[in-house]
Amino acid sequence: MNALPATVTIRDVGPRDGLQPEEPVPVEERIRLVHALQDAGLRRIEVAAFVSPKAVPAMAGAADVVSGIDRRPEVTYAALVPNRRGAELALAAGVDELTVTISASPTYNERNVHMTVEQSLAAIAEIVELAGEGPVPVDAVISCAFGSPYETDLGPTEVAALEQRVLDLGVAATTLADTTGMATPRRVDEVLDARPTGAPVPGFHLHDTRGTALLNAYRALERGVDRFDTAVGGLGGSPFAHGAGGNLATEELVAVLDDLDIATGIDVSGLVAAAALVEALVGRPVPSGVAHAGPRRQPAVPSS
Amino acid sequence: MNALPATVTIRDVGPRDGLQPEEPVPVEERIRLVHALQDAGLRRIEVAAFVSPKAVPAMAGAADVVSGIDRRPEVTYAALVPNRRGAELALAAGVDELTVTISASPTYNERNVHMTVEQSLAAIAEIVELAGEGPVPVDAVISCAFGSPYETDLGPTEVAALEQRVLDLGVAATTLADTTGMATPRRVDEVLDARPTGAPVPGFHLHDTRGTALLNAYRALERGVDRFDTAVGGLGGSPFAHGAGGNLATEELVAVLDDLDIATGIDVSGLVAAAALVEALVGRPVPSGVAHAGPRRQPAVPSS
Repeated sequence: MNALPATVTIRDVGPRDGLQPEEPVPVEERIRLVHALQDAGLRRIEVAAFVSPKAVPAMAGAADVVSGIDRRPEVTYAALVPNRRGAELALAAGVDELTVTISASPTYNERNVHMTVEQSLAAIAEIVELAGEGPVPVDAVISCAFGSPYETDLGPTEVAALEQRVLDLGVAATTLADTTGMATPRRVDEVLDARPTGAPVPGFHLHDTRGTALLNAYRALERGVDRFDTAVGGLGGSPFAHGAGGNLATEELVAVLDDLDIATGIDVSGLVAAAALVEALVGRPVPSGVAHAGPRRQPAVPSS
Repeated sequence: MNALPATVTIRDVGPRDGLQPEEPVPVEERIRLVHALQDAGLRRIEVAAFVSPKAVPAMAGAADVVSGIDRRPEVTYAALVPNRRGAELALAAGVDELTVTISASPTYNERNVHMTVEQSLAAIAEIVELAGEGPVPVDAVISCAFGSPYETDLGPTEVAALEQRVLDLGVAATTLADTTGMATPRRVDEVLDARPTGAPVPGFHLHDTRGTALLNAYRALERGVDRFDTAVGGLGGSPFAHGAGGNLATEELVAVLDDLDIATGIDVSGLVAAAALVEALVGRPVPSGVAHAGPRRQPAVPSS
């Protein structure tokens, strides 16, 4: 086995990416979920998106979510911001980190945020400048980094070129997102191999559209990636296709990392409790297997 | 990346392991599923179990399934048999391969087949003797090989010792089964490292109870395993916990193997069609992501 990282940092994006496509969940319940996650040991949580409540009703009340959290000094509270206005609101609310998104797919970028890639780059430049006064770090999440549902196929060199432009704007970190679950171990290799020389190790944000999220995370680990976005319960993606597009489930990744003796500081049983809360909030089972079966070291009912 | 096998053989166990825990599906529909699988390029299919129809109503009519298949010379038709009587019926029906199961977990063995491990070994000896007259090869599937829900934990050396005893009975092959989804990449390594010296490369039969089936398959591939049991659609396990315990989905494995340029002779789009048939037969969505989203090289609707 290749040498794997000794520790991994996980940012749970469940309160944001997980709940964003759902029917709106009240602010106090979203705060409760953040508390459950920090109780489970998460030290980095994307808690809100400062976006138009008209466009994304599920993310309304972002400032109230942030202000309502019983904050702990060891936890980094991140929020997604699409533009200067969102960044101003997020910084005023006192978040510790801003996440911005830009897509390697021009078509996806326009459909997702109604901006061209150039417009998104300009927005990121503004956000970085604003955040620099804090200073609050900005993490640029590059979506469709492993394939696009629109273009015939995006080459890893195009992804790398965009990442370089984003790094040149002064972001603190980049995260490569597999927005539609098109990554494979080969694609992980190709995208990592094509990255700009000297660029900091990226985070990985994986979706499980084709059942490959955990496999791709493992391949990334083998390649030295030690920072992942995941969502408790594996929530995210389309609420109309159960289990078909969610984020990599935090508890599924942590269970595997535990078994590999890779430290995360996160307790799987706390995550299982948080996943149960998520099920109560969205009113249906989450796709995560570990949420239902527990980690392997725990007895489970045999399936067949 | 470690050197991976150039070709992989897949045995689809959907008509048997996939449908076994379901409400009974009529014989003609099970035959239809076998045809859909061979149309998709499967060259090894577990089509039936010659077990008591009282104990397992879903497997009633095994001989009718076998005799109703429009057989192709290049396809190996396998059937599960629990004992001498089952083997006699299966051989009379003209199957090409017998699969037998024995559990590394004594408790699971007794609960699953109401025999002690010693009794199962005796039954396998009888089956091997009977089949040898064909000669029809016998594949011994060792269940709970990566962990047991009953014993505190089964050591890889115990699994290896049982495998040696089974090999000594003259079986043609062994398959290591992760019956309750407890395998991890580490456990895959440990179990393979502990195997008897000179034993033939085993098959892997993985369940996705904790979302790890594809990851474990990949780790096994990295270790030279080139034979897998999978079920179209990811069916299997408990019908009462959707997506919580099914087999590794054939189309999810083939999609990844295709991307790695590992030949299987199987066409993913044919599998997607077969998975749609499975959904019609069981009356609910299958857990497989690829069944719904298609393989990565095909456009898909973005999730979020």
